[in-house]
Amino acid sequence: MKESDHLKADSWIDEYQSGQRFGLQGKVLINKESKIQKITVVKTEKYGNGLLIDNCWMTTEYDEKYYHECLVQPAMCSAKSIDKVLIIGGGDGGSARECLRHINVKHLDLVEIDSEVVKLSQKYLPCLGGKAWIDPRLNLKCEDGIEWIKQAKSNSYDVIIIDGSDPKGPAEGLFNKSFYTDCKRILKHDGVFAAQTESPAAFRQLHIDIVKTIRSVFKYADPLYGCVPIYPSGYWSWTFGAKDKRRYLRPINRRVNNLPKDFEIWSPKWQNGAFNAIPNCIEQALKE
Amino acid sequence: MKESDHLKADSWIDEYQSGQRFGLQGKVLINKESKIQKITVVKTEKYGNGLLIDNCWMTTEYDEKYYHECLVQPAMCSAKSIDKVLIIGGGDGGSARECLRHINVKHLDLVEIDSEVVKLSQKYLPCLGGKAWIDPRLNLKCEDGIEWIKQAKSNSYDVIIIDGSDPKGPAEGLFNKSFYTDCKRILKHDGVFAAQTESPAAFRQLHIDIVKTIRSVFKYADPLYGCVPIYPSGYWSWTFGAKDKRRYLRPINRRVNNLPKDFEIWSPKWQNGAFNAIPNCIEQALKE
Repeated sequence: MKESDHLKADSWIDEYQSGQRFGLQGKVLINKESKIQKITVVKTEKYGNGLLIDNCWMTTEYDEKYYHECLVQPAMCSAKSIDKVLIIGGGDGGSARECLRHINVKHLDLVEIDSEVVKLSQKYLPCLGGKAWIDPRLNLKCEDGIEWIKQAKSNSYDVIIIDGSDPKGPAEGLFNKSFYTDCKRILKHDGVFAAQTESPAAFRQLHIDIVKTIRSVFKYADPLYGCVPIYPSGYWSWTFGAKDKRRYLRPINRRVNNLPKDFEIWSPKWQNGAFNAIPNCIEQALKE
Repeated sequence: MKESDHLKADSWIDEYQSGQRFGLQGKVLINKESKIQKITVVKTEKYGNGLLIDNCWMTTEYDEKYYHECLVQPAMCSAKSIDKVLIIGGGDGGSARECLRHINVKHLDLVEIDSEVVKLSQKYLPCLGGKAWIDPRLNLKCEDGIEWIKQAKSNSYDVIIIDGSDPKGPAEGLFNKSFYTDCKRILKHDGVFAAQTESPAAFRQLHIDIVKTIRSVFKYADPLYGCVPIYPSGYWSWTFGAKDKRRYLRPINRRVNNLPKDFEIWSPKWQNGAFNAIPNCIEQALKE
């Protein structure tokens, strides 16, 4: 509302969602249509470089940890073993970096459908992937993650992480019962499944439906709540599933002790809190 | 970024904060300078009617519970008694409504510095205060809250709630050691103090400084984290203090059982989680 800001209005990059918008001041570096989607790379004053897909904020250099730590660490710290890990989506590299902080990981398959997302992230958001891009444990495949999961061997992954965009366009197939059933099939008996599951505020019914679907497939599944400033409403969720027990609730001490202590958001204490901090209206709706 | 949205750009009401903005589509109903500040009342498509002070979003009809339940219920459910309650600020009525849900409250002093905020909220945001405005237990005073607290009797309130705007302009005096020391003085031995304490993301250092100041005054004090979609970054905090023990951590069962069950966010489980869900970087900074 400041006059000085209005004068610079053409320098705002906004995401619009039914009657609300969130914008960062900056300039567009790249705006291109890949074979899959529209990809925009921007340089912002507040959050460093950022990535939008189909006009929606995906990530920025300065706030990406609010998302990646919360999606990845609760799974990586609680699966019985973490020898073999799969990420579907995650072409910006942030989730791969979080996985590979764990020295016990032997092999990580990163299956991103759009090679342009990988190329642009490596060039313009290099801190997200960091050393993960040159880590010999990383097996990067630019393929359709849904097909990958259909064809993967049963009981073959310790951790499966679904790091896709919203359930419209290319990521739509990452949110249905058939897909989750395949994920369960290829997850080991004592493994952990993790997925971003939208906003309990901006997309409440969608969030509830996704959590219910994951619960209908995995024997154990629970949502965890946090905040990602650049996403609609800021209020965000990730949902974790397991076959043998609610093992994702508690990190394994030994594994936590092996980690560096420089997390922005995640800690065992935070994780414990974030699983309990379920909004009352969502808890009631999940019982219905 | 949609063309159709750009065409309606003059219907956006935005709050600007250093390089980022958050806007709701709608129209301005009232825009006036009171003796204290600039007050704007808007009608939005997504969140109903809303209130801005000095161009910053204060509250809207549809998301106000994300703020008011989290500020008020942890204090109201944990103080030993709740006979006598004080709210400083809170002229929109939302905090008063949350307090007066408790049938055990005998007297509530609501001390709002700007009578225009009260008048406009009663007219344009009537659901926030609801029946609180005609509740005989409410004593509404349009006066300076800092003076009120200086002159109040020692050990006279069971619960004190600081529901002010950001620490610039009229609310600046609600965030310093001298003010908190007066709050402690007038709080009963087994009472609870509550205050909104800014964003751990958008105003990180400010948030850390405020929590440290409250901790330096009250023997026991802890921040609690949640999400308010219309506030900068969405990530928000409230800090609670007590004299005898960390009594704000746990609601009193008997009191919870007396409450209606229609909360949007708050529940004893949510409260327990929200106190633990402290971002790792903030927890480390508070130890320094």
